[in-house]
Amino acid sequence: MVTWIGRRPQRVETPRLAARGVAQSSVKVDIGDLTPDHMHYLGQTAYCELGEFESLARAVALAPSLASKEGLSAAAGRALSKHHGLITEIRRKGGEPDLVMAPFVSALDRFRQQTAGSDWHELLLSCYLTGGLLEDFFIRLSDGLPRDVGPRVAQLLGEDSGTDVLVHELQAAIAADPALGSRLAMWGRRLVGDTLLLARSAMPGCEVPAAADARIEPVFTDLIAAHTRRMDGLGLTA
Amino acid sequence: MVTWIGRRPQRVETPRLAARGVAQSSVKVDIGDLTPDHMHYLGQTAYCELGEFESLARAVALAPSLASKEGLSAAAGRALSKHHGLITEIRRKGGEPDLVMAPFVSALDRFRQQTAGSDWHELLLSCYLTGGLLEDFFIRLSDGLPRDVGPRVAQLLGEDSGTDVLVHELQAAIAADPALGSRLAMWGRRLVGDTLLLARSAMPGCEVPAAADARIEPVFTDLIAAHTRRMDGLGLTA
Repeated sequence: MVTWIGRRPQRVETPRLAARGVAQSSVKVDIGDLTPDHMHYLGQTAYCELGEFESLARAVALAPSLASKEGLSAAAGRALSKHHGLITEIRRKGGEPDLVMAPFVSALDRFRQQTAGSDWHELLLSCYLTGGLLEDFFIRLSDGLPRDVGPRVAQLLGEDSGTDVLVHELQAAIAADPALGSRLAMWGRRLVGDTLLLARSAMPGCEVPAAADARIEPVFTDLIAAHTRRMDGLGLTA
Repeated sequence: MVTWIGRRPQRVETPRLAARGVAQSSVKVDIGDLTPDHMHYLGQTAYCELGEFESLARAVALAPSLASKEGLSAAAGRALSKHHGLITEIRRKGGEPDLVMAPFVSALDRFRQQTAGSDWHELLLSCYLTGGLLEDFFIRLSDGLPRDVGPRVAQLLGEDSGTDVLVHELQAAIAADPALGSRLAMWGRRLVGDTLLLARSAMPGCEVPAAADARIEPVFTDLIAAHTRRMDGLGLTA
């Protein structure tokens, strides 16, 4: 199995020589044909960040203390600014943001609803885990985008999301209530399943699972590893 | 009665010579002793902008189309950035934002609840009217702040709020449904009443109404005039 470790910095430092969709190396997984058309990619990613913003804004509204409101509002601002950065990219490439995002509204709204959680802590965990996994995923996919889009978008998505506040709130709550910890561990497992399904559906070729599986698998292995590190950081079993 | 027209530019152009609370001119209304202590002012204004952000974020979540989601998310971002600008001012003056905002939470949360409206259009009108009136009010009050705070805050609050999108959405909806227009006109009257009460309670001395009234009145006359212009712009009778 090919490892993805070490690939990300290279993408930024080395100019891409091959056109999108043309294999660049025989030893690396080529993600080119798993990446959707760049306008689709931008529409989906932009709407995804808008959804993350909406969830974080709801977390702000429900926050039990001013200190957490404060930190969460900064995180909401980061998601919003990524969203607006992606809208700028869509316009730069001649797209109309509403039209470009429209195809992804119903699936992403449904996802957002399924992962909203039943209380504030479940919502926080969802913002942290689904937001983190989807950003990792879209950064990974950006490797297959044209070189005047991919690195810019990867850099934008890779900017600090200000989610430390989510980690601190969750750690404190779990430390104070072990029963909450077990409930959130279960919720985290449900979230990773839903999020991986969403990610998979975002890749062209997923309608022929067997054909795509061999190349998708290393990508997902890495996403799951990062997810497990997030769960570990909270003291939750993934 | 003294008019406030023409006062605002002067505040920026002329260095203040007198200390806060000392009458600066016999022909102008001195707002110094109607302005709360600068830390109180900053706490109240910061929490107010956070509330405006929360309302706009809720409007984003409830928006029926991607185009309005887009415009509203930009407006939410502006309110959030004003909030964060005020938090920066609080820190610059050595304050702890949570502690400084805490005294205003319950009154402002209650106000936000009372003015939330029963549907999306009422919420939009509320964001536009209460947000506009309170920003006007706090810009006016900033005149009584120390000069290393007042002009900075007035400039921050005076930045474009991106609320054109609210006007366009409301104008279109009212044009399409006259019954909505009458309902919103009534809602606008209720909103201005609630907002003026909130503004009044933000001024020291309001516990002795008769004594403060003469000086408060010209301020409020101007706020109401601006409110009436907003209503007119929507085709609503104030």
